[in-house]
Amino acid sequence: MIQFYTYTTPNGRKISIMLEELGIPYQVNVVNISNGEQFEPDFLKVSPNNKIPAIVDEEANGLAVFESGAILTYLAEKYGQFLPTSGEARYKTLEWLHWQIGGVGPMFGQLGYFTVYAKEKMPQAIARYTSEAERLLAVMDRRLTDNAYLAGEVYSIADMAAYPWVVNAREGAFLGASLGAVLAEKPAVLRWLNDVGARPAVQRGMAVPVV
Amino acid sequence: MIQFYTYTTPNGRKISIMLEELGIPYQVNVVNISNGEQFEPDFLKVSPNNKIPAIVDEEANGLAVFESGAILTYLAEKYGQFLPTSGEARYKTLEWLHWQIGGVGPMFGQLGYFTVYAKEKMPQAIARYTSEAERLLAVMDRRLTDNAYLAGEVYSIADMAAYPWVVNAREGAFLGASLGAVLAEKPAVLRWLNDVGARPAVQRGMAVPVV
Repeated sequence: MIQFYTYTTPNGRKISIMLEELGIPYQVNVVNISNGEQFEPDFLKVSPNNKIPAIVDEEANGLAVFESGAILTYLAEKYGQFLPTSGEARYKTLEWLHWQIGGVGPMFGQLGYFTVYAKEKMPQAIARYTSEAERLLAVMDRRLTDNAYLAGEVYSIADMAAYPWVVNAREGAFLGASLGAVLAEKPAVLRWLNDVGARPAVQRGMAVPVV
Repeated sequence: MIQFYTYTTPNGRKISIMLEELGIPYQVNVVNISNGEQFEPDFLKVSPNNKIPAIVDEEANGLAVFESGAILTYLAEKYGQFLPTSGEARYKTLEWLHWQIGGVGPMFGQLGYFTVYAKEKMPQAIARYTSEAERLLAVMDRRLTDNAYLAGEVYSIADMAAYPWVVNAREGAFLGASLGAVLAEKPAVLRWLNDVGARPAVQRGMAVPVV
């Protein structure tokens, strides 16, 4: 059984999507980050960076893995799915996974912070991250104009990593509504959002956790 | 031969360190991002996100790989070094690699932007990223108190990814000098900086590219 530590955030939902796609048994442990539960000593042992998501694989001597990109890679390699084992297809998957981990996630996250959460609104900071989010969506649209999925013709962990963040840009959650007009001019991203969002496992994963 | 596209930034130096550690032949292609050379159409074919670093492996039918974390993984898997092939050691390496890619890199980068590059200084933004950089250095210090290297007892691509960013925190480059006092209270990080920085390949890699 996989013990899965998560909350209602895009980074958590990358992993619930993957667990649903694999169809393996897992147990949800809600870590309420709005109450500071990520700082409790027991959770620190699982996730030394005090963030969700994290997993403990009871079938692997209690191996704990944190960081969404590492967890996706671990599960893909353990079950031999959604990440090719060699060649160009493998490294296209990993480069677009890392593009999400190092770019879309942190930059959309900063946009959300300055747009929604910061007490004092700083127009220059909002402009900086709006511009970067638009740039990233343009890169994504170019990629998805020529390819069905981020890694190429096959759905992969790169798509699972990007979907929960990009769907927020469409729906305004976390990020404010400022990206809706940008997305309206990104037809390939919208097509991809529809394709990925139609997968039953993605729909189930996006509903985890129930709080 | 590896064609290596880079500039004088921490993300570029992760890869020059790895190439020097592997001792494989490579050719440096300087992409001067202060002149906007990353937007030239030929470079876009190699790096669809318009960022350095990127590589083209001429021995692998011209396979192009962008994103520093994906390049490190590609080279580690091709040459069978600095990333264990299975088990706990593999996923400890990948989780700390992703911790750098999704955390240290973007957050230190934002700190540098608001501290050094932004025309208007926004104290609340500087405070936000100073606080996050301090948190990340505390996580790193805890990890390196119990382990010689980020992934455990063995030097790996996780250390190569973190070193060029954390050494900037010591030396003030990019980030301003605000983290020097914080680092002075992080003895395990300072010990690790000395150990990693003493490696001849790291010293050679940090000197690439010459511009």
